[in-house]
Amino acid sequence: MSVDASVLPFDSIRSLLANMPAPDTAAIEAVRIRDRMLTKPAGSLGRIEDLAEWLAGWQGRASPAVTRPLMAVFAGNHGVTARGVSAFPASVTRQMVENFAAGGAAINQMCAAYDVGLKVFDLALDHPTADFTEAPALEERDCVATMAYGMESLSGGVDLLCIGEMGIGNTTVASAIYYALYGGEAADWVGRGTGVDDEGLARKQAALDAAIPLHRDHLDDPLEVLRRLGGREIAAMAGAILAGRMQKVPVIVDGFVATSAAAILHAADPSALDHCLMAHVSAESAHGAVLERLGKKPLLDLGMRLGEGTGAVLAAGIVKAAALTHTGMATFDQAGVSEKE
Amino acid sequence: MSVDASVLPFDSIRSLLANMPAPDTAAIEAVRIRDRMLTKPAGSLGRIEDLAEWLAGWQGRASPAVTRPLMAVFAGNHGVTARGVSAFPASVTRQMVENFAAGGAAINQMCAAYDVGLKVFDLALDHPTADFTEAPALEERDCVATMAYGMESLSGGVDLLCIGEMGIGNTTVASAIYYALYGGEAADWVGRGTGVDDEGLARKQAALDAAIPLHRDHLDDPLEVLRRLGGREIAAMAGAILAGRMQKVPVIVDGFVATSAAAILHAADPSALDHCLMAHVSAESAHGAVLERLGKKPLLDLGMRLGEGTGAVLAAGIVKAAALTHTGMATFDQAGVSEKE
Repeated sequence: MSVDASVLPFDSIRSLLANMPAPDTAAIEAVRIRDRMLTKPAGSLGRIEDLAEWLAGWQGRASPAVTRPLMAVFAGNHGVTARGVSAFPASVTRQMVENFAAGGAAINQMCAAYDVGLKVFDLALDHPTADFTEAPALEERDCVATMAYGMESLSGGVDLLCIGEMGIGNTTVASAIYYALYGGEAADWVGRGTGVDDEGLARKQAALDAAIPLHRDHLDDPLEVLRRLGGREIAAMAGAILAGRMQKVPVIVDGFVATSAAAILHAADPSALDHCLMAHVSAESAHGAVLERLGKKPLLDLGMRLGEGTGAVLAAGIVKAAALTHTGMATFDQAGVSEKE
Repeated sequence: MSVDASVLPFDSIRSLLANMPAPDTAAIEAVRIRDRMLTKPAGSLGRIEDLAEWLAGWQGRASPAVTRPLMAVFAGNHGVTARGVSAFPASVTRQMVENFAAGGAAINQMCAAYDVGLKVFDLALDHPTADFTEAPALEERDCVATMAYGMESLSGGVDLLCIGEMGIGNTTVASAIYYALYGGEAADWVGRGTGVDDEGLARKQAALDAAIPLHRDHLDDPLEVLRRLGGREIAAMAGAILAGRMQKVPVIVDGFVATSAAAILHAADPSALDHCLMAHVSAESAHGAVLERLGKKPLLDLGMRLGEGTGAVLAAGIVKAAALTHTGMATFDQAGVSEKE
């Protein structure tokens, strides 16, 4: 898949959105048929069975497999951090990228635990986006180029893609996107992120209250929401999620911030997340409401709010087990086990 | 640890219950101190952080580790199956034990997925317990001997014990235990198990309604509840859970049936499950209410109701990741990452 630079930038994205493939219903049916033959009561593995169907349908094969899972972590910096919206200095984004490279972060340990590959994409950290309370965060061409860069994360035969992020200030960015997409009040969408105090929370809210009126006339278009309020890691994640759909790679979306990239696509086309599993519901307060609007039931609820993809890789561990269980179990016939009377 | 056969059987169990060790508070404090130094916002890993503390406290070491996890599956047969309480014939218990040995069951695949050792304990399958609607399921000496057998599952240096079961008819057994311990009505505690129809459900309820009046005068003692209503796999699981406590091995308890063994211990001493993690809330309808009575919040909610330990081993996969994350992450100092402002 490539993005045609000769057409207007967002049109290339719109073209992909208009041509998203459907799931492979024959593969799903094959999983259902085999599942009923496996040595267990029908339906007794609940969501583990659903995961096998989901993998098969979006991988487009009757025998789902997770042999080359990838955790893609996208890192970006945000002009809005100048407004004191984070408990940590903006320099921490790069420091954490270095920590990822050195193997010292939470996501490194969790990827190792489940043998999931980890790639970190550093998105022009020395060039933060514009402060969205004053101007659009990104130019359209930058936004599309970053989405295209995110799409490239899928190169190399990945069969399950996990999406995560790092970016000081980006819970404010995600909250702004939700506010733009879903309305209500700023307070409905902001939370404490990495741990801001009451004043920090008020600053996050104030940033949203400044930004939404500024961009008001352009927020009917989700891609405009993305470029005006989003950051580079959000754009790259949106590209990666879309690339998964086009390339038959099921996607696991991490928490509060990663979901904002998914929400952009969902607003553009409500079927755009059909190939996505939402890993967990974050402890960041608005996440549950966002997942409801997306019509998604998260797999896990562990009170996590770190980001980096940590929720996604825990979910990937369960998805791997689901694939192995479906494909590895014996049938009633093979095992000589009597069926239901 | 051994059970002294020279004293009255249940007294040996009561003696263990009276001498349960407390958690290692120094180890827990060491984990908390290190956690605050790790390169992430404090508290941002939610229950993953709790799991590291829990492991450390009950393993009795500041650096929690899961290097020799064991899934112990206990299998038993039940006289009450003669009353048509299961959708599957009683012969399936042995057939599934053979399926475990051959590697064909769900639990085999899941243990392989997370590199968890699997041992299956076949408990006198040719000698089902007595039908508890007519007589006590077990003699006291049998019950204690089976608990002692369950305790032996911990031999060999296990550092995390997962508890699961197989036994056609045993959701009826577990329901009877909950009814005896918690009162209410039989209908509050029975569910569809492996998939009984409405008539089967009525037969489960009728079995409980016959059993509780018969044993009424003896149900104040949880160990009497165990021997009169429980099966061998329930007794063995109770022994294994208690052995974990005595031997500094944290325990993960599987679903609806395994929890009945835990509930017996909890009724005998409310602190008896402090070293236990409840893996998941089962789709078997009464399980959530039981977990509430135990004061336990399950780790997962995946609509599962298979048993075998499948929920426990999925939870073990997350616990392994929690241990690796706590011990493997870099500190702010080590990584040169700035702390909260």
